[in-house]
Amino acid sequence: MRIALTLMYDGTDYHGFQRQKNGITIQEALENAVYKMTGEKVCVLGCGRTDAGVHAKRYTAVFDTNSAVPLDKMPIALNTHLKDDIRIISAKAVDDDFHPVFSAKRKTYSYRILNAEINNAFERRYAWFYPQKLDVELMKKAAENFLGEHDFSAFMASGSNVSTTVRTIYSLNVTKENDIIKIEITANGFLYNMVRIITGTLVYAGIGKIKPEEIKDILKSGNRTLAGITAPPQGLFLERATY
Amino acid sequence: MRIALTLMYDGTDYHGFQRQKNGITIQEALENAVYKMTGEKVCVLGCGRTDAGVHAKRYTAVFDTNSAVPLDKMPIALNTHLKDDIRIISAKAVDDDFHPVFSAKRKTYSYRILNAEINNAFERRYAWFYPQKLDVELMKKAAENFLGEHDFSAFMASGSNVSTTVRTIYSLNVTKENDIIKIEITANGFLYNMVRIITGTLVYAGIGKIKPEEIKDILKSGNRTLAGITAPPQGLFLERATY
Repeated sequence: MRIALTLMYDGTDYHGFQRQKNGITIQEALENAVYKMTGEKVCVLGCGRTDAGVHAKRYTAVFDTNSAVPLDKMPIALNTHLKDDIRIISAKAVDDDFHPVFSAKRKTYSYRILNAEINNAFERRYAWFYPQKLDVELMKKAAENFLGEHDFSAFMASGSNVSTTVRTIYSLNVTKENDIIKIEITANGFLYNMVRIITGTLVYAGIGKIKPEEIKDILKSGNRTLAGITAPPQGLFLERATY
Repeated sequence: MRIALTLMYDGTDYHGFQRQKNGITIQEALENAVYKMTGEKVCVLGCGRTDAGVHAKRYTAVFDTNSAVPLDKMPIALNTHLKDDIRIISAKAVDDDFHPVFSAKRKTYSYRILNAEINNAFERRYAWFYPQKLDVELMKKAAENFLGEHDFSAFMASGSNVSTTVRTIYSLNVTKENDIIKIEITANGFLYNMVRIITGTLVYAGIGKIKPEEIKDILKSGNRTLAGITAPPQGLFLERATY
């Protein structure tokens, strides 16, 4: 039976989702928890390779099991074997060919920027502290130019290996509440670091370093060096994958 | 010159405010930062002895200095010598007889309870996870009975040594937003663990274990064992001291 878990995690203390040698990852923590619950050594597949320090609010991960643990007991059973910075919210049975990446129709990420003179002790793990004043109206205008289908080569970290760099952005909203500027972006898929580079580019728009109308030229150029900086990981949240 | 600092801190990684032998405290961190800024070994006085894991949003602390560092540069200068879970917000000169505890007219604390079936990875440091369903209306009714001047002996941790256990509560509000129940309480002063015991008692009201009208009898009794449990530290925030 293939099980799809919905979980949330605070990524601060993890080396990203995907298992690696030099530190604990979300994947390893989940595989250990499943092993403690069922005695099975499974491979947990996730809906995206979030980097170290990146968070998730509704992450989808799957594994195959012969366990008799009832589905409605599984979240609590797994949570007892996880640190409280990872919480399983629900578990459900899915088709054997369900894949958390390839079955996803769209994904939504959000990015939080703290635009204030002094950093906030409670936001340091969950926002990019950016003290220079940002013009949110300019950021909104720049955001509009990302909508639709484009080749996002200019907004991808180098060294990626993908069959196509074309993606479609369905929505990209910039809002401000008190000192927090929130960017929320939904697309049919994302290239490596794409949200963080788009965020860095919107910040450049917010300080007047890139004009909103220049976004279209940067997209056409496919030139990473024309886009903004890569925003740091701690402001980034995977909101949800939609199937 | 006596300087009053306004600061915020995430208390998760500290052994409370007051300097002690078995771990780093907010006081020690501040005294070290002042030493690095001015070369002076000062004693920093705080507006309250918050426990390990308790947070502060607008905490007042004072120290005496002969430093020539301009007041408006002091927050940034001190922040460079502090971890980012403590942030100095402002610094101002005060009278030499200003004392952060004795000069305070009132203090406001808040307490956050996460009332949900599963804990939240982003709230675990900042809220008490309480899965049993709480009746907020009962909590509000119970809260009303704390208002005014009372002997709060029943709501004080044992072993305290104070000249009087009479305090006046000016306001005590219980509100709910999504899964978070927030208690905000303003008084002319607080006994040791008073907010956390009042919170535990309001939670007992919320599950029907203590009736709202019984609060007055518990106050009259002066008997700690009749009140509720002491709520854990991580949900507690010093909001501000008012002078």
